[in-house]
Amino acid sequence: MAVYTEVPAEALEAFLARYDTGALVSAKGIAEGVSNSNFLVETTTARYILTLYEHRIDLADLPWFIALMEHLADRGQPVPRPIRDRSGQALQQVSGKAACLIQYLPGVSVSQPTAAQARAAGAALAGLHLACADFAGARANTLGPAQWVAAAAEIGGRLDEIEPGLRQLVRDRVAAVSAQWPRHLAHGVIHADLFPDNVLMLGPEVTGLIDFYFACTDILAYDLAVLHAAWAFPRDGSAPLPAHAAALFEGYEAVRPLSAEERAALPLLGQGAALRFLLSRAQDWLAPPSDALVQRKDPRPFARRLEHYARQA
Amino acid sequence: MAVYTEVPAEALEAFLARYDTGALVSAKGIAEGVSNSNFLVETTTARYILTLYEHRIDLADLPWFIALMEHLADRGQPVPRPIRDRSGQALQQVSGKAACLIQYLPGVSVSQPTAAQARAAGAALAGLHLACADFAGARANTLGPAQWVAAAAEIGGRLDEIEPGLRQLVRDRVAAVSAQWPRHLAHGVIHADLFPDNVLMLGPEVTGLIDFYFACTDILAYDLAVLHAAWAFPRDGSAPLPAHAAALFEGYEAVRPLSAEERAALPLLGQGAALRFLLSRAQDWLAPPSDALVQRKDPRPFARRLEHYARQA
Repeated sequence: MAVYTEVPAEALEAFLARYDTGALVSAKGIAEGVSNSNFLVETTTARYILTLYEHRIDLADLPWFIALMEHLADRGQPVPRPIRDRSGQALQQVSGKAACLIQYLPGVSVSQPTAAQARAAGAALAGLHLACADFAGARANTLGPAQWVAAAAEIGGRLDEIEPGLRQLVRDRVAAVSAQWPRHLAHGVIHADLFPDNVLMLGPEVTGLIDFYFACTDILAYDLAVLHAAWAFPRDGSAPLPAHAAALFEGYEAVRPLSAEERAALPLLGQGAALRFLLSRAQDWLAPPSDALVQRKDPRPFARRLEHYARQA
Repeated sequence: MAVYTEVPAEALEAFLARYDTGALVSAKGIAEGVSNSNFLVETTTARYILTLYEHRIDLADLPWFIALMEHLADRGQPVPRPIRDRSGQALQQVSGKAACLIQYLPGVSVSQPTAAQARAAGAALAGLHLACADFAGARANTLGPAQWVAAAAEIGGRLDEIEPGLRQLVRDRVAAVSAQWPRHLAHGVIHADLFPDNVLMLGPEVTGLIDFYFACTDILAYDLAVLHAAWAFPRDGSAPLPAHAAALFEGYEAVRPLSAEERAALPLLGQGAALRFLLSRAQDWLAPPSDALVQRKDPRPFARRLEHYARQA
């Protein structure tokens, strides 16, 4: 949540000269994204986000992410469009970092979504899934069952430092969920991280889906399970919000109805989603990245979600 | 250079309802200011900066700073106007912090000012001095000679950790400069921190003077000495930039000519300016604030400036 790399105004002016974007009027480093630096850039004609890719992103994946965002923007999805320079290039170098100038979208990220907002998020996710049906190319999920197993082996011995009993819970659930993982369900491109932070809204309307840097090819209904974990609980994971959950599924199914198999798998997929966020947060918690600017997030609310889904399964 | 306090979108919407600003469209935490959190807020009618006051600011001074900014904006100076709510209040509370909604101004902070930009900054500073002539109320400079003496006594013994010989240089200069300090020169409201970071520009034109949170009542020509230290050297302080210095004085004097006494005092005032930034940076360097997000700045470039001014005096 910080700007890691400075971009002098003079360098930014020189960079913008490659584009048909007009002249620089304003640039503010914005506190968004943990794996990149972002600047809100205003020119004489429009506003943009300039993203510099910093951490935790495999540079080899960037062309795929950028092509995906462009594909979705082309299909009218509320996804910020990567801007190409006059030579047709979208992926650039700025201040020594891989970078991309991206369309600015209005809207705010809500902290406590309403049920109506959860419905809109569900519909937006389904729209994204349908719009990706003809997207070529694939990217493996690097935070799937194999990685939970590896992470649990790596940090399992220390999980009780976070909360007594967490080691046992994770061991049991990783074993059960990875053994039963429903690999046969419909696959496609998923966002994989559609938390309220990554959805821009104006009132109950979705104006932007952002931060595609965990997007990959995986089980479509898993993406809905992530959305449920993110939107249908209070932050602390204490008790699910039934009206939010119902609205979220209604919104999704109005655009892309679930199969009976997908629906039946949701408690299992929910456990997978809870494990994915529980384990990545636990890794950061136990071995904070050397970059002190990354704020650690409490893993425990995802232990509560994991328990909830396990009771349902 | 970070956002210390989060403002949920819902809280921001409720806050904006006090104003005639239209509805919230977008809000981005911006990486500006070391002593406050800032958000770039867009509504259906305009853009604003929302500032939350965090560190190193005496809350009792806020009404004075806000009144000063309003006074200057009223007089057509390129200073962002504090916005009053429907009850006439500008100083507010947001997320438990003192806060103010402030006009957004276009422009970028340049990293390597040109001589033409230094001229414009000089003229803008003089305009600010003249426009404050009828501003009521005073605020003592809390980083003046008495504070250099105190700071040098406090950290003097450790200055050689930063650079061998720095202790002796500071001891000599603090003694000489505070003894000769030209207290009789014309006083008024000064910005006291008009570095390029705090000036918004479009090309060679000043579009905004920002960050008035060191403003105080002091020697007017001292403010010009700060401007010289900030704009007429490369960052490392190695060798002054004569064309920048000449342009800066020309710009200032085109609006407010200096008296012969003021001009003669500039090398002494320059030493004072160099000591002020050298000592505050050295304090942070030797005892970093507990808030790890504050980036330490190298004090040594101000030792170079101090030596330069001492040779001239």
